[in-house]
Amino acid sequence: MQERLEPGKESASPVLAVVGVGLIGGSFAAALRRKGRVSKILGVGRNRRSLQEAVDLGLIDAAISLEEAAREADVIMLAVPVGTTHSVLAAMLPHLGEDTIITDAGSTKVSVVEAARAALGERVGQFVPGHPIAGAEKTGPSAATADLYEGRTVILTPLEENSAAARLTITRLWEACGARVVTMEPDTHDVVLASVSHVPHFLSSVFMWQVATAENSDLRLALAGSGFRDFTRIAAGSPEMWRDIFLANRNAILSEITEVRHALDRAEQALLEGNGEKLHDFLERAALARRFWGSRSGLK
Amino acid sequence: MQERLEPGKESASPVLAVVGVGLIGGSFAAALRRKGRVSKILGVGRNRRSLQEAVDLGLIDAAISLEEAAREADVIMLAVPVGTTHSVLAAMLPHLGEDTIITDAGSTKVSVVEAARAALGERVGQFVPGHPIAGAEKTGPSAATADLYEGRTVILTPLEENSAAARLTITRLWEACGARVVTMEPDTHDVVLASVSHVPHFLSSVFMWQVATAENSDLRLALAGSGFRDFTRIAAGSPEMWRDIFLANRNAILSEITEVRHALDRAEQALLEGNGEKLHDFLERAALARRFWGSRSGLK
Repeated sequence: MQERLEPGKESASPVLAVVGVGLIGGSFAAALRRKGRVSKILGVGRNRRSLQEAVDLGLIDAAISLEEAAREADVIMLAVPVGTTHSVLAAMLPHLGEDTIITDAGSTKVSVVEAARAALGERVGQFVPGHPIAGAEKTGPSAATADLYEGRTVILTPLEENSAAARLTITRLWEACGARVVTMEPDTHDVVLASVSHVPHFLSSVFMWQVATAENSDLRLALAGSGFRDFTRIAAGSPEMWRDIFLANRNAILSEITEVRHALDRAEQALLEGNGEKLHDFLERAALARRFWGSRSGLK
Repeated sequence: MQERLEPGKESASPVLAVVGVGLIGGSFAAALRRKGRVSKILGVGRNRRSLQEAVDLGLIDAAISLEEAAREADVIMLAVPVGTTHSVLAAMLPHLGEDTIITDAGSTKVSVVEAARAALGERVGQFVPGHPIAGAEKTGPSAATADLYEGRTVILTPLEENSAAARLTITRLWEACGARVVTMEPDTHDVVLASVSHVPHFLSSVFMWQVATAENSDLRLALAGSGFRDFTRIAAGSPEMWRDIFLANRNAILSEITEVRHALDRAEQALLEGNGEKLHDFLERAALARRFWGSRSGLK
């Protein structure tokens, strides 16, 4: 049933199973189908309606169980809250094909690698950890698009147990999605992502919570404009997914929040003093950095 | 030269002068020209190149001085940093036509009203303070569009010295731009806008500053994605304009920052405890509020 994956030789069109067919998993499926890089796409999920929607949208060919996915797929993509990584892998292990390669799209990597080692034991080499830097405030299969990963960066944090063939298979699939693949250590990933992804989400949610629970929140929200819209957009994201990310990357996030508090202290002090020059310098540094990033990031 | 503005009788097509022909002033001009609501549009600005660009783009018919604007215009829109309100009004006063109406687009209102009273004295009734809740990260005349104010809210904080005719003229012009006009007290405006506009900008800039000045900022910025993009978009705004806003509305902003810090303390404590339930509840409250707002705000 399984095609052999020898070093340098990839499965021409593997059977793909996606666990969690939402924006991330569904877009991976859609991109690979468009490129003809998979022969069949199977979907696993907790939510029956959502799975049926994925079938109706043509993202997956059939909805199956975790056990079936473990048995039938050549490549398995986990696109689930990071806190469920261990239980999903443990459930698949007894049924897992010898040459099946599993990857994930989790937003933290140290905790995911730990979970994979604990769940898969000596077969952890079949798991190639990854994280696509892509997403949107939308969720669910209907948000999935074949071009979500075009021009985006995917980080792999390969294990020393991974074979060259396993790394290559996952790398090539992401490249087929239009992504640029980079590799790094899991802890480097987690510290950097705490800074540029997890902390912004935390602060956006904190701010949104504060406005929504304020006494005159209706008036506030009635007068909120496009700046508010942009600043709070990420706060609409999945509470389950982000709770898991925050818990999984707690130390790095707390450490970065401390740094942001120091910066806030400084800026607030300048405001308290009415120091226009200090305020201007701080705002200008931020504005120039943001404009430069905007002109280079390729993100519209 | 001046048309009479009696109660209930508006100038059919007044001469408009825009002081500061950037995104806000230029879009006001473009919208009114499209609707045929002004006979002529004059532009005033410090930056000669920017003014020439406004002429080339057809936003204004001619670039003139402040004194000429005061003499020749029926309606004057101030779209300048709020900190310059006093000096601009004081420079115009000696030349100001008796029936000329001035309005502004400043993001704070208490300080603008104070500046107007100080600069115009007994003629302050000619000044109708306003604030369109619209904007973008882009600046300059080239960013101006005739539909910036379509479906947006404009807040007027009229003075008791304003005539009914003066209020009506400004209200009708904004309505011609497609905006919905609401009125409120200046201090209410400032407290609410501190919450939903000024504090988000402050936090976004603080965060951007912290990332840009971190030791490994290059790596961080290379891995920043769409969440980062949205959260920091407003930090690219004009440092001069925002310095003035922060200084003009300092007390309300400092008070709101304190509230956000309290909310941050609570969320951080839940994270520190590893309390998934508390974290989830907090994230869910924020997400539901943001999604509800998004579905109602009419802002894409």
